[in-house]
Amino acid sequence: MTVKVKKTSKTKEKVIDAAAYLFNTKGFDGTSVREIARKADVNVANISYYFDNKAGLLEYLVSSFLDGYTSVIEHAYVELDSRSARECLLMFIKNIMNYQKDNNQLARCVLREITLDSVLIREVLTTYMTKEKFYIKSILETGIHQQEFRKLLIPHTIMQLKGMLTMPYLHPQYMTEVLHVMPNETYFTDQYVKELERWVNLTICLPLEKSFISTRTTK
Amino acid sequence: MTVKVKKTSKTKEKVIDAAAYLFNTKGFDGTSVREIARKADVNVANISYYFDNKAGLLEYLVSSFLDGYTSVIEHAYVELDSRSARECLLMFIKNIMNYQKDNNQLARCVLREITLDSVLIREVLTTYMTKEKFYIKSILETGIHQQEFRKLLIPHTIMQLKGMLTMPYLHPQYMTEVLHVMPNETYFTDQYVKELERWVNLTICLPLEKSFISTRTTK
Repeated sequence: MTVKVKKTSKTKEKVIDAAAYLFNTKGFDGTSVREIARKADVNVANISYYFDNKAGLLEYLVSSFLDGYTSVIEHAYVELDSRSARECLLMFIKNIMNYQKDNNQLARCVLREITLDSVLIREVLTTYMTKEKFYIKSILETGIHQQEFRKLLIPHTIMQLKGMLTMPYLHPQYMTEVLHVMPNETYFTDQYVKELERWVNLTICLPLEKSFISTRTTK
Repeated sequence: MTVKVKKTSKTKEKVIDAAAYLFNTKGFDGTSVREIARKADVNVANISYYFDNKAGLLEYLVSSFLDGYTSVIEHAYVELDSRSARECLLMFIKNIMNYQKDNNQLARCVLREITLDSVLIREVLTTYMTKEKFYIKSILETGIHQQEFRKLLIPHTIMQLKGMLTMPYLHPQYMTEVLHVMPNETYFTDQYVKELERWVNLTICLPLEKSFISTRTTK
């Protein structure tokens, strides 16, 4: 499943790419609209036309990334009707990793922005992040209820999961320069998804063998 | 073990606390030296005296936080001589969580800054982060060698570990407002450390029972 963030026009697309790149290297406050226009090779007037100003552009980046993000996780949540909680959780992990890989400049910019305490981010927390929590929580609770998952502390599990999923895209520079891993390559995501699958099987799921051992012992 | 970042004078301490707070709410570029001086209730001249300018202040925040951080992990690494790799890894996890809790404003500011692509951060990556990688890698490799740990992919495991450890302190607002968890309370760290201990025991360590089962089966 490949979800690319919607970019309606060529000019808009160029502005979005340039802005995400500049915000990642120089920070939001360190970047001017003029620089974005130069980098995108468009008129400053184009930016005003599409996004009003720099704040409007940032808001657009954040909400378009998170719209796609939320739809990916909603997709896994909806599958709870026909699949096990474990399968839904693994589907979520795989699709979110690919979504971040496919939109890596934007992912980095938005994941970084979310750590700041601003009016925009307060809104994001009460909308997108609350929705995200609802979906993950539902998957985890279903798994616990159906005795597929251990009795987990939901917030702590969400925290661990989100930490592991965002790490490669929030810190691409650390990834490439210290760990020598390329988070934007399919090879990496495939391998990392397998690692997270091991985490799900061993730490989240109830052990199958253990229940087998205990039945043998009690007989 | 409580390690507090060294603050040599009362004035310096007030400036550091004010700067960390303002950088977290308004961002580095969005904060002026004048605002820091006002918040810290000191003279602008004091800031120039101790830190030169805003960049010097940021550099001081980053390096003093990471000095303490590195000493915490070095402490766990040194214990490899007398303890098992599992014990060293658990000691590292517990002490880093407490270190971040005890310096939470600073932790948030530095963890956030590290995601940016700047000259300062490039230096941090080649010094502190490379050292940190060496220590964690050594602990993991010792555990693998002594057949206490599974055959892990080292960079991927470091990534997961760091993701889980930094999440509560990089995103305190998300923690409190969406997950309703207080990352700066001892109660939280104790509980979260237990969760991570479970991860170490189940996902990192080789299962003890399994080897027991297989010996029984082969008999």
